[in-house]
Amino acid sequence: MTEWDIWLKKGERVDDVGFGGLFLIQKPAEFCYGIDGVLLADFAELKKGNRAVDLGTGTGIIPLILSYKSEGTELWGLEVQEASFERALRTVALNGLTHRIHLICSDVKEAVAILGAGSFDTVISNPPYNSNKDGLKNVNMAKTIARHEITGTLEDFIESASGLLKDRGDFYLVHRPSRLVDIFILARKYRLEPKTIRFVSPRFDEKPNIVLIHCVKNAGPELRFLDPLFVYDKNGEYTKEIQNIYERKKTCSDTGQV
Amino acid sequence: MTEWDIWLKKGERVDDVGFGGLFLIQKPAEFCYGIDGVLLADFAELKKGNRAVDLGTGTGIIPLILSYKSEGTELWGLEVQEASFERALRTVALNGLTHRIHLICSDVKEAVAILGAGSFDTVISNPPYNSNKDGLKNVNMAKTIARHEITGTLEDFIESASGLLKDRGDFYLVHRPSRLVDIFILARKYRLEPKTIRFVSPRFDEKPNIVLIHCVKNAGPELRFLDPLFVYDKNGEYTKEIQNIYERKKTCSDTGQV
Repeated sequence: MTEWDIWLKKGERVDDVGFGGLFLIQKPAEFCYGIDGVLLADFAELKKGNRAVDLGTGTGIIPLILSYKSEGTELWGLEVQEASFERALRTVALNGLTHRIHLICSDVKEAVAILGAGSFDTVISNPPYNSNKDGLKNVNMAKTIARHEITGTLEDFIESASGLLKDRGDFYLVHRPSRLVDIFILARKYRLEPKTIRFVSPRFDEKPNIVLIHCVKNAGPELRFLDPLFVYDKNGEYTKEIQNIYERKKTCSDTGQV
Repeated sequence: MTEWDIWLKKGERVDDVGFGGLFLIQKPAEFCYGIDGVLLADFAELKKGNRAVDLGTGTGIIPLILSYKSEGTELWGLEVQEASFERALRTVALNGLTHRIHLICSDVKEAVAILGAGSFDTVISNPPYNSNKDGLKNVNMAKTIARHEITGTLEDFIESASGLLKDRGDFYLVHRPSRLVDIFILARKYRLEPKTIRFVSPRFDEKPNIVLIHCVKNAGPELRFLDPLFVYDKNGEYTKEIQNIYERKKTCSDTGQV
């Protein structure tokens, strides 16, 4: 028995997030967080006093990182799967963050009714990437819901994000580049104008496989591109920028703590 | 007096396109073609027997390159500015291509009425990049029309392209990445589904400043990214791929002529 065992259920483990003394409970058979959520949390900019919500928070990795990188923010996470929600609750407690991170178990379509229209400065989401009609589903239902648009479509996530945001509020989304046309069309339909975009490629000469998008509610059109982000260098190692993101060096040096 | 003088008017010059023994009449004070048109002509794929039209053909550089890279195609160019149109006519004659390239002087909004709905396999366009309301116009009216949406908006170009194309016809567009949201929204509005996209960056670690988009009329959604294209290497020289595009080596080797 280890010191973690009181926090864990069968098949779960505790992972060190790698910075901030943060730990995360995960159940590998169901779903583990990937690089996408980490990059999204790094991409999102929160100001002191902001209320932010992560739609489809899963393990809670995004609010967890945001609690470390942004001071004086009020963080919410919404997750439809009960087991994930309950696991995220334990993660928040284990990290002593119950005063900062609030979790709700709900379908994304109910988010506005539960949390209130126009009540957030920032909405963040790493939604399921695959459209419900795409190919074979993962046989594990928990993984399927996390990866496919079963309980919430891309439109549900974008519509809810718009409903939750104040005028000029920020929406940060990570998704697959192949869905970019749908994302832009839905974003504009719900008055979330795409303002900044960053493509992430495995290597510098490869096409992107992740896209980070920042939309502003009711803003005017004009899309700004950020320099591309590369995950691996030519030796197959993480690039300096990815190392910095994982070690939070960048964020810390931004706020003067090197 | 040189051998070219019979083809030229005041302020004009003849430029060697760099391959295929092709020459182009340009008036530097008005508008000279840039890399964008060359990249677009390289990006577009024409099959034998295809009818293709370039909307806003300017100097005629795109049909000129297409006449060299694609065999057995029927090429059209439409240009609203009379002086550019007349210059392009002389360029076509000078290259002995009057049997391959047909030019029309018209507003893009009249293209379908003049050329016929659903009569083309391929539409290509390097339209004005700047929206009419953007900042200062170029004091030279010819340059202004070539660069700003004075006589035709992005929507006019996309609507005409859709009207001219057959079902499943191809639309190839080059534009600024900052207009990507507008492009996707208008493309889907006129049933030209974006299927392939390629970003062009000055250098590998810089954000893109040119985007090449291939849409297919009435196709289903799913956007495929091509590997990015870089213009300069770390020594400030053209990359191999750009050199190949300018020297047509790639196209030639594709067809077996190395």
